[in-house]
Amino acid sequence: MPTTSNQQPISSPAIILVRPQLGGNIGAVARAMSNFGLSDLRLVAPTNGWPNEHAYDMATVSAAPILDAARIYESVGEALSGIHFAYATTARQRHMEKQVFEPEDAMRDIRGHLAEGLACAIVFGPERTGLENDDIVRCDAIVTIPTGSANSSLNLGQSSVVLGYAWHRSGEVTSPARPAQSQPPAAHEETEAFFSQLEGYLDTLNYFRTPEKKPLMWQNLRNIFLRAQMNEQELRTLRGLVRDLYKRRPLKP
Amino acid sequence: MPTTSNQQPISSPAIILVRPQLGGNIGAVARAMSNFGLSDLRLVAPTNGWPNEHAYDMATVSAAPILDAARIYESVGEALSGIHFAYATTARQRHMEKQVFEPEDAMRDIRGHLAEGLACAIVFGPERTGLENDDIVRCDAIVTIPTGSANSSLNLGQSSVVLGYAWHRSGEVTSPARPAQSQPPAAHEETEAFFSQLEGYLDTLNYFRTPEKKPLMWQNLRNIFLRAQMNEQELRTLRGLVRDLYKRRPLKP
Repeated sequence: MPTTSNQQPISSPAIILVRPQLGGNIGAVARAMSNFGLSDLRLVAPTNGWPNEHAYDMATVSAAPILDAARIYESVGEALSGIHFAYATTARQRHMEKQVFEPEDAMRDIRGHLAEGLACAIVFGPERTGLENDDIVRCDAIVTIPTGSANSSLNLGQSSVVLGYAWHRSGEVTSPARPAQSQPPAAHEETEAFFSQLEGYLDTLNYFRTPEKKPLMWQNLRNIFLRAQMNEQELRTLRGLVRDLYKRRPLKP
Repeated sequence: MPTTSNQQPISSPAIILVRPQLGGNIGAVARAMSNFGLSDLRLVAPTNGWPNEHAYDMATVSAAPILDAARIYESVGEALSGIHFAYATTARQRHMEKQVFEPEDAMRDIRGHLAEGLACAIVFGPERTGLENDDIVRCDAIVTIPTGSANSSLNLGQSSVVLGYAWHRSGEVTSPARPAQSQPPAAHEETEAFFSQLEGYLDTLNYFRTPEKKPLMWQNLRNIFLRAQMNEQELRTLRGLVRDLYKRRPLKP
């Protein structure tokens, strides 16, 4: 039985809404979650505060418990705590070196991870702007909903319905578990600790040269390491390697 | 080429909303239609009249032409004029001797009819009550959206998104290849050049401690980087990073 560290079984992905603006949209997401068997709702800095009566209006009675249990976070990083695989939803091409899934494939991927006891999350951005690149780089993969039209986009409620539906459908067929890695991937906070260490060294070395260049350079670097999906032991190894490279260099003669 | 009686090609099913109550819901349906390549909207006796500004508010600019072109009818029978196969959407079991489709199967069925030049429609009922039996009996089949929960139902906007999405997906014969990485993975010899550089630094630092430990440690390290499947640019970036960490360390004061 898959379990988190506190021994609760993980049976479905968390839904993370980043800086949602309208309570009605939060309620619409909760309603879709209720319809399709999802329950773990996490809100990052909702613009109009929380709780929000418009959310309850839209959610209807059946989804109110999901809103009652929603957890509030100040940052995407905090909301991703304990999550092993995060999927960023975005309609636009972001030109990042991350795997891009269509909904059904993403859900099969998620079910594979859950079957190994690894927590997953689907991350949605603010209504108008979508996820910022800084948020997307924290995620392991991208989910894009194919539409028939290039110049129209799904709103938050619509997107959550499509992904909820894809989630429910993916559970109606048995998907083969992927070959188990000998150790599970590290949780996000452990990966972030490695990134903090590396970023500190690189800043000290003036590696990024100019503040303007840093965001893209650092994003590209993070994506390389995220793609490797390191487990805890590997992360420790890499932290030691980076530290040794930086600190244990033999003194010049 | 499939044609209607007036010789226009039929490429998608009509969407018929029976006695819709809220303009916002009509707009949500139009928006979903726009997103997923549907265009023929028919309204049967909309409760709050027509046109309805709330519909336009919800539809956004991209779906406004669908609302502009919507046709208004007084009865379901009139709206079904010219339609060969009508599919009634309903969540409840109606105990009618009609074929019940899930969304994907319904869309395949519809595409088969369209290919033969036969017009099709998907019929939605009023928000609160759904389709009446008198309306359903006029239809040829039933479409039901499977949800994970017995006591929750999809609203009109949500249902139209699921069916629109299923329509769009049914038209994709083969799932489109995921967007190619902007650059192909680097050739093996380039990866090996990075490994040689890194190994040289680590040997100099006595990172592996003992010759006996090195083979397994080095293999584990290589596996981390190999899993990332770096392209040439990323490899150059990582070589620069490792070199900078090793060589450009600021001197101790």
